[in-house]
Amino acid sequence: MRASTLLLVTLRDDPAEAEITSHKLLVRAGFIRRIAAGIYAYLPLMWRVLRKVQAIVREEMEAVDAIETLLPQLQPADLWQQSGRWSAYTAGEGIMFHLSDRQGRQLGLGPTHEEVITCLAAELIRSYRQLPVCLYQMQTKFRDEIRPRFGMMRGREFIMKDAYSFHGDEADLKAYYARMDGAYRRIFRRCGLRTLAVQADSGAIGGSASQEFMVVADAGEDLVLISGDGSYAANQERAVSLPSQAVPLEDTKPRNVSTPGQMTIEAVCGGHGLDPTQMVKVLLHRARFGDGPDQLVLTALRGDQELNDTKLGNAVTAGAGRGTLLDLALLDGGDLALPFGFLGPDLGDPAIAAATGVEGPILRFRDHTAAALHTFVCGANTVDTHRVCDWDTLALTWRDGDFRNAQPGDRCRHDPTTVLEAVRGIEVGHIFQLGCKYSEALAARFSTAEGGEEALWMGCYGIGISRLAQAAIEQHHDGDGMVWPTAIAPFEVVVSVANVQRPEQLALGERLYDQLRLAGVDVLLDDRPERAGVKFKDADLLGIPWRVVVGRGAAREQVELKPRTRPCLDCTAADLLATLLPRLERERQEMSLS
Amino acid sequence: MRASTLLLVTLRDDPAEAEITSHKLLVRAGFIRRIAAGIYAYLPLMWRVLRKVQAIVREEMEAVDAIETLLPQLQPADLWQQSGRWSAYTAGEGIMFHLSDRQGRQLGLGPTHEEVITCLAAELIRSYRQLPVCLYQMQTKFRDEIRPRFGMMRGREFIMKDAYSFHGDEADLKAYYARMDGAYRRIFRRCGLRTLAVQADSGAIGGSASQEFMVVADAGEDLVLISGDGSYAANQERAVSLPSQAVPLEDTKPRNVSTPGQMTIEAVCGGHGLDPTQMVKVLLHRARFGDGPDQLVLTALRGDQELNDTKLGNAVTAGAGRGTLLDLALLDGGDLALPFGFLGPDLGDPAIAAATGVEGPILRFRDHTAAALHTFVCGANTVDTHRVCDWDTLALTWRDGDFRNAQPGDRCRHDPTTVLEAVRGIEVGHIFQLGCKYSEALAARFSTAEGGEEALWMGCYGIGISRLAQAAIEQHHDGDGMVWPTAIAPFEVVVSVANVQRPEQLALGERLYDQLRLAGVDVLLDDRPERAGVKFKDADLLGIPWRVVVGRGAAREQVELKPRTRPCLDCTAADLLATLLPRLERERQEMSLS
Repeated sequence: MRASTLLLVTLRDDPAEAEITSHKLLVRAGFIRRIAAGIYAYLPLMWRVLRKVQAIVREEMEAVDAIETLLPQLQPADLWQQSGRWSAYTAGEGIMFHLSDRQGRQLGLGPTHEEVITCLAAELIRSYRQLPVCLYQMQTKFRDEIRPRFGMMRGREFIMKDAYSFHGDEADLKAYYARMDGAYRRIFRRCGLRTLAVQADSGAIGGSASQEFMVVADAGEDLVLISGDGSYAANQERAVSLPSQAVPLEDTKPRNVSTPGQMTIEAVCGGHGLDPTQMVKVLLHRARFGDGPDQLVLTALRGDQELNDTKLGNAVTAGAGRGTLLDLALLDGGDLALPFGFLGPDLGDPAIAAATGVEGPILRFRDHTAAALHTFVCGANTVDTHRVCDWDTLALTWRDGDFRNAQPGDRCRHDPTTVLEAVRGIEVGHIFQLGCKYSEALAARFSTAEGGEEALWMGCYGIGISRLAQAAIEQHHDGDGMVWPTAIAPFEVVVSVANVQRPEQLALGERLYDQLRLAGVDVLLDDRPERAGVKFKDADLLGIPWRVVVGRGAAREQVELKPRTRPCLDCTAADLLATLLPRLERERQEMSLS
Repeated sequence: MRASTLLLVTLRDDPAEAEITSHKLLVRAGFIRRIAAGIYAYLPLMWRVLRKVQAIVREEMEAVDAIETLLPQLQPADLWQQSGRWSAYTAGEGIMFHLSDRQGRQLGLGPTHEEVITCLAAELIRSYRQLPVCLYQMQTKFRDEIRPRFGMMRGREFIMKDAYSFHGDEADLKAYYARMDGAYRRIFRRCGLRTLAVQADSGAIGGSASQEFMVVADAGEDLVLISGDGSYAANQERAVSLPSQAVPLEDTKPRNVSTPGQMTIEAVCGGHGLDPTQMVKVLLHRARFGDGPDQLVLTALRGDQELNDTKLGNAVTAGAGRGTLLDLALLDGGDLALPFGFLGPDLGDPAIAAATGVEGPILRFRDHTAAALHTFVCGANTVDTHRVCDWDTLALTWRDGDFRNAQPGDRCRHDPTTVLEAVRGIEVGHIFQLGCKYSEALAARFSTAEGGEEALWMGCYGIGISRLAQAAIEQHHDGDGMVWPTAIAPFEVVVSVANVQRPEQLALGERLYDQLRLAGVDVLLDDRPERAGVKFKDADLLGIPWRVVVGRGAAREQVELKPRTRPCLDCTAADLLATLLPRLERERQEMSLS
């Protein structure tokens, strides 16, 4: 392709809208343009990268016998009502764009396709003979993000690959999930990405097990905890660890303690020479469900621990026996007539009901770290007062569990001699063992070899195609611009004609451009009437792996061959292909090695 | 690919939802499944066809130097407000799905992308040096159709290729439009379609000239009028013709005529021995605009003529000097106290205003056929009364124009000795010379070689990818199923193993499958444990151009080679490639000839 027809427009300055490097570079190099918050046009350079990523994904999906399809983006509400997710996706987190059509029927804009594919499976899969089968698609998806940001990292419209597999039993699902895991590792490696496979929470998708693939990068929105020996890695949402040892309380006599104005763990500890591990703190949430009235949630944690919202949310969903959990909002004073800062685990149902206006039983959750304390200091449910007490005295019924954030520095469960370290990650893939959640909800059943009828076992497997492309820049750039891995670069080679006014330069540039194209190289000819310096800067900004400079040496058939991040090689026009092609071939393959 | 992993499910009976052959076959053969009204899942077979069509389109777009891009599907309302189309697309015809995001901002789901691309052009194109340039995309588009039907023919979610070109002047636009016209003809020919290029109305897209490409098929929703000599073809919306000669009125004396209960042209003519060409009929419409109050439109036509809504709508838009015309609704009695059936051209403004509640001047349009009558019979604006009168007596001011439908049998304007014939067509492409409509509205300007600044000249060029694929079936099928043109068939060849229980048949089938794949043939291996008859019927239904049957002759290395619509050729396994490949190559190329 010729730069003169590419509509190449680069910017010198960082755009005001961008916070992270990859986003700045994408806008500066003319890869994307913002149309609305979280909504971008993929300009030709970006689209070339995305098509290359898609081609790699397609090859690896076909290698695991997945078949390509395309499902609708508009999805009828009734399918989502059958799976029980309509309210969570529209009224709860509300991440699904939705609208009424001219008949007044509700439609959602697909953020994911479990409902649609399961509905198709119910129609198409009849017998165990058709199993296993896996369908995938690459498509624009939509999420009405609360805070769209970082360009394509957290956009409201983005490109996903999503695959859905169907199996006759759990063993077959697990075996295929393992094959898909391999395919994912190959995809990311071929795209030149360093990724980490980490245990993850399954979130609104659900199912029994799931794993995320994280591109390690400082700009990542996810916190990943990884053991020093590398054998354990998990998203903090899901990570587990051994808590630190609690410091035993010296004076265990039950009594009230005056704590005037000491509303935080730190203040009480400071005022009374206590360690945070000697205290129990109490958090109060209001849970909103898809069906019926709100319910209150009281959580007790050891004083030094941090609540993990995801774990608590999962426990509320499982423990409440209610419909979809739409929202879990922390209560912290404001209009409520409760002694916040001095709440104790035995805060009574009537007291809370009177203050919050929410009736019904309070759900009480207790983290293992709190449960393990015999005697502890906690709020006395009276302003300016704490007390020393123990669980036996309180005589309450708890749902015990792990509700705390694992933290960097925590000891690992699998080996208490190693500790967790933190890295930031960009989630580019997520694979799930869904089990029978959707097939049961949408009656997707098959007849077994034995003549029975059972629900299909399902897996689902996502890759954020557009996010992956941006994550690659986050991992591969320098002060001059992007540094694309060859396999997904918008072009492999740019032939820069230093001065297009010089006929011998332009002629040689054109000749080399033709030769490279014939040799199957994805090449850009920079034939713009710009100064050489502008062209070189642009080539670096665009991150094209190889630059062939046709300049003053053209008359002597001399050119420069410049790898993006390594020093220049001088070579003759006649030698160019022989010099470049083997190196290029190696780079193309490098990432393909298993 | 193996049929056993393809999730191939065919139906014996026509689906109740389908009215036309192509739709029935698509559902029966397992190409598509309905998810909601006008919304379909493209199953793997369909997606293979669509990808092949896309590949052809991509090649031909690149041949005319168009560059691929991908624009957002969610589009902010303010862009459409700038072009003045938001109200027409949401409140008027209302074909744009639209919604509010969590911030309450209005977004539309793109039915077309003039606004977005022009906004990008305004940012990216600065100088004449960057021109001409053409960007295209292939993408799912949305239309909230009033009556979605015929499967992918008139769906609410469908795949389009849309291209947008930018030019420094009109001559360059016209030259590029001609190149694009050539690309379109090559695309349709390569896809195996017989198409007709016809003059078209530019509709809501606008611009000065446009041309549609119609697949000729009885199921087509469009009526195309074509001259016997083939030199003129136009969509009826736009077609022109010479009207028949009017029969002169014998008694031209102005007078009232009693026409009790004679409320139609036919009844008056029958009751008084008149010819319809001797009458003037009057139609009354209520025009709704994006800005301000409704306005009334009175149209006078010769009694034998049929109103052309498109022509009248264009004239109202041009003549009213108002905002977007949202709707033009025929008034026909009901609650209105007007003597419908007896309306005359001089129906007075106050009378209409009183009856309809709409004030302001009435817009009066008169078709040339009516204007050409000197004396005529028309309604007297009194129940049960018509009258004989002439235009001079009426003394009204008219906007004269062509507001009637051309009809099959009408004489052609370019050659009155030839007459128009009617064919039905499926619109698969539409190309437009937009002029500066959008660039002026969205301030997309460039600096000229002379140092001035001017609005960009634009063209736009659409192809309905999914509609095209279905139109191909409408043109190519027989009693046994689809008959795909080789270039866009889901597979070129199916190897049908008659009995997979017989090891020699399965082994030979697998061997031939591998050989064909290695030879670059797009081949399906039907390895399902089904009866041979079922497999053959399925292969015919799917319309795969070539079938290789591996049956009883397998032990003797004997196979059958069966073209979809021609008799069987016997050949040995050893000869298969030599027999098949040249024929296949010819078929692939056949459609590529220019």
